[in-house]
Amino acid sequence: MTAIATARPTGPAALTADAERAYDLDRQHVFHSWSAQATLDPMVVTRAEGSYLWNGDGARFLDFTSQLVYTNLGHQHPRIVAAIQEQAASLCTIAPGYANGTRSEAARLIASHTPGDLDKVFFTNGGADANEHAIRMARLHTGKHKVLSTYRSYHGGTQLAVNVTGDPRRWPSDNGSTGTVHFFGPFLYRSSFSATTEEEECQRALAHLEQVIALEGASTIAAVILESIPGTAGIMMPPAGYLKGVRELCDRHDIVFIADEVMAGFGRAGRWFAVEHGDVVPDLLTFAKGVNSGYVPLGGVAISEKIHRTFAERTYPGGLTYSGHPLACAAAVATIETMEEENIVERVDALGREILEPGLRDLAARHPWIGEVRGTGAFWAIELVSDRATREPLAPYGGSSPAMAAIISGCTRRGLLPFSNFNRIHVVPPLTISAAEATEGLAILDAALTEAYDATR
Amino acid sequence: MTAIATARPTGPAALTADAERAYDLDRQHVFHSWSAQATLDPMVVTRAEGSYLWNGDGARFLDFTSQLVYTNLGHQHPRIVAAIQEQAASLCTIAPGYANGTRSEAARLIASHTPGDLDKVFFTNGGADANEHAIRMARLHTGKHKVLSTYRSYHGGTQLAVNVTGDPRRWPSDNGSTGTVHFFGPFLYRSSFSATTEEEECQRALAHLEQVIALEGASTIAAVILESIPGTAGIMMPPAGYLKGVRELCDRHDIVFIADEVMAGFGRAGRWFAVEHGDVVPDLLTFAKGVNSGYVPLGGVAISEKIHRTFAERTYPGGLTYSGHPLACAAAVATIETMEEENIVERVDALGREILEPGLRDLAARHPWIGEVRGTGAFWAIELVSDRATREPLAPYGGSSPAMAAIISGCTRRGLLPFSNFNRIHVVPPLTISAAEATEGLAILDAALTEAYDATR
Repeated sequence: MTAIATARPTGPAALTADAERAYDLDRQHVFHSWSAQATLDPMVVTRAEGSYLWNGDGARFLDFTSQLVYTNLGHQHPRIVAAIQEQAASLCTIAPGYANGTRSEAARLIASHTPGDLDKVFFTNGGADANEHAIRMARLHTGKHKVLSTYRSYHGGTQLAVNVTGDPRRWPSDNGSTGTVHFFGPFLYRSSFSATTEEEECQRALAHLEQVIALEGASTIAAVILESIPGTAGIMMPPAGYLKGVRELCDRHDIVFIADEVMAGFGRAGRWFAVEHGDVVPDLLTFAKGVNSGYVPLGGVAISEKIHRTFAERTYPGGLTYSGHPLACAAAVATIETMEEENIVERVDALGREILEPGLRDLAARHPWIGEVRGTGAFWAIELVSDRATREPLAPYGGSSPAMAAIISGCTRRGLLPFSNFNRIHVVPPLTISAAEATEGLAILDAALTEAYDATR
Repeated sequence: MTAIATARPTGPAALTADAERAYDLDRQHVFHSWSAQATLDPMVVTRAEGSYLWNGDGARFLDFTSQLVYTNLGHQHPRIVAAIQEQAASLCTIAPGYANGTRSEAARLIASHTPGDLDKVFFTNGGADANEHAIRMARLHTGKHKVLSTYRSYHGGTQLAVNVTGDPRRWPSDNGSTGTVHFFGPFLYRSSFSATTEEEECQRALAHLEQVIALEGASTIAAVILESIPGTAGIMMPPAGYLKGVRELCDRHDIVFIADEVMAGFGRAGRWFAVEHGDVVPDLLTFAKGVNSGYVPLGGVAISEKIHRTFAERTYPGGLTYSGHPLACAAAVATIETMEEENIVERVDALGREILEPGLRDLAARHPWIGEVRGTGAFWAIELVSDRATREPLAPYGGSSPAMAAIISGCTRRGLLPFSNFNRIHVVPPLTISAAEATEGLAILDAALTEAYDATR
């Protein structure tokens, strides 16, 4: 989800023979996402368990990234592994046109946790195609074409999804889709509305969206798509009332409200779905990642009754070969059952309140580079600035800097994999991380911040 | 891949308790591809093995569809099942930024079979995103925008992929992408060029493409994307020389040649890749389905050296969370090794020449509705017409008819799942089907054609 998500602390020199072969064949044959291919020096991963993974030299790393914020139940959770193995033994795959018990059960479990009447599930392979299909449903449901989305957002890598996206990953592929319009969401720390309080930011952000709708023309707008909590773009918690305000604007103007919960959903934000923080029910809700901890590729769209009715007698003109793939659905069933039985959502909420938030606020009290700490559950960002008064970012928008590189390298040298994006470090560990592991990771982050800051003085 | 791929011979009445629950939950919670949701009566599949599957009532069906033409090594191949189980026990997932032995090995094996210098592999989740990314690579490589594709084609369900598609599934989502242009490919039986021989069709189709390039402007065209053998659109074998002619036009005008081998690749056409029939090397080759028999969602783009060089020092602006998913790659390794060791490609070529082609030509000699038989390997179409002289299709383009419905129902009642599209039946069994099973299926098709034809007389 980000070009600089993980540092790569080892080169091929230190590797075992198997790891060296993996590295060499990777460099000969694997084309990597979001990268300049000749500049890569990927870390070989040979083993992973729980909150840790091991590189080709046998060194252990605490994973504060959940990979790309998706291994929500950690690596190699025995219950998900067993479910995949059992499904593989029974029925690996069946085409979408049939009915299958595992697919049905996954849909039932998902629908039992989605808010309101989002009770029908269209399965995709990941988050990008989930958003693509949600937009198609909205266009056909409304008979309108434009899609409004925010700057500082990410909705996926395929053409329409990346054109709806509001971060630099859109730029090289921009102008490929018709009808995409961007507006500003609430983000008090860098307010686009000269607001000074969350209440003011909320009111002004809603007034701004209302103006955009009026000036683009409500009769042209099919959907507003929002990450319930923007993820890689910065984990900006929506102020109280914002999502309700968006819901009201959508209702007033016959616009479909699509909540993108690909990253924020399935417990990450200390709720089953992050929209619960705003107490709203969207018309469509997209998911992937946490639905099955990414053990098998899976995404989807949860669909409200009114949109489902649109496609009751009229063909929904979209689909994919692996929609509702049994192996992926078996991993989802095991993930959701584990989340239910082990009270994962409640535990994540407590982890955020008792460990991560106090720990990060303690860091902020001691590190002058930390401009803001924000988040919830297991979903936190620290915004790094070179000057707290001017809020000058420690790396420019869309780029990196020696200071950010030093922090990242300080973490990886100490055995912590951090998630970074521009001038931010996100703390997004597995939902199953223990208090001791979380505390260990925060201590490493503390040391890396101290070292990098001191080196500049 | 098609709205009417499979008939659904049973309703809920005859089901076991487990199958009934699967059916009921499906109807309550699963939103199906390419369908009007309220009209569905999906067959419950409880078991599948080799060339057969079983419905909720325990009835057995011979699968002449390979589901959506993807279970190339049949259902529950023990070697692929074991590979998935072993990879699940070791490492289910790791983010794309790392190197991993299973991903490296899958890329090596794929590159060892792709033609020419298509030696780098970008992994996706399926065929649609493979085509989306191939088009992005072509646009950035050339600095041009338009994409030329054929009528009578299918390239995937996401917005750009379906806009490039040339079949009715495009229509409801058309006008969403910029720069898509359609032209006519060769199809002698329904020639767009008033041709009477394959040679004439080839020459005129190439002259047509040359004109489209000239009139759209070569300086505006990034790519020509073609299914090496168009699949769901009709399995129209390109005449000798056509693909070479396209290759030459692309070379002359600095246009990237993208071969879509999502359906035709990995042995389906009696070659590792169908472009081998035309003896050409495209610049990009997309795949999915057969790469791992669809046991885990996987697709990808095989990339030539010159396009890889474009992204050596410059970031490729695209990616996805599950790119190179280890579980999917483990299934690909097992599939390709099995294909190598069991000489699957050679066996498919022989199956086509010795069983399927003679069997289908025999049907054509006896059934007046069969206008044409065409194909290769395990990839055959019979074109059904109400009148051989006028070639009036037995169902209209984009639709069905009572006669087609009668043929399909005659097959399923006799225990054969046929693949149908408009006025065609495709014979696309698993590559591992035995001669006896293939002969059994052809006999059922024979009986169903007789019964349906006689009912109209």
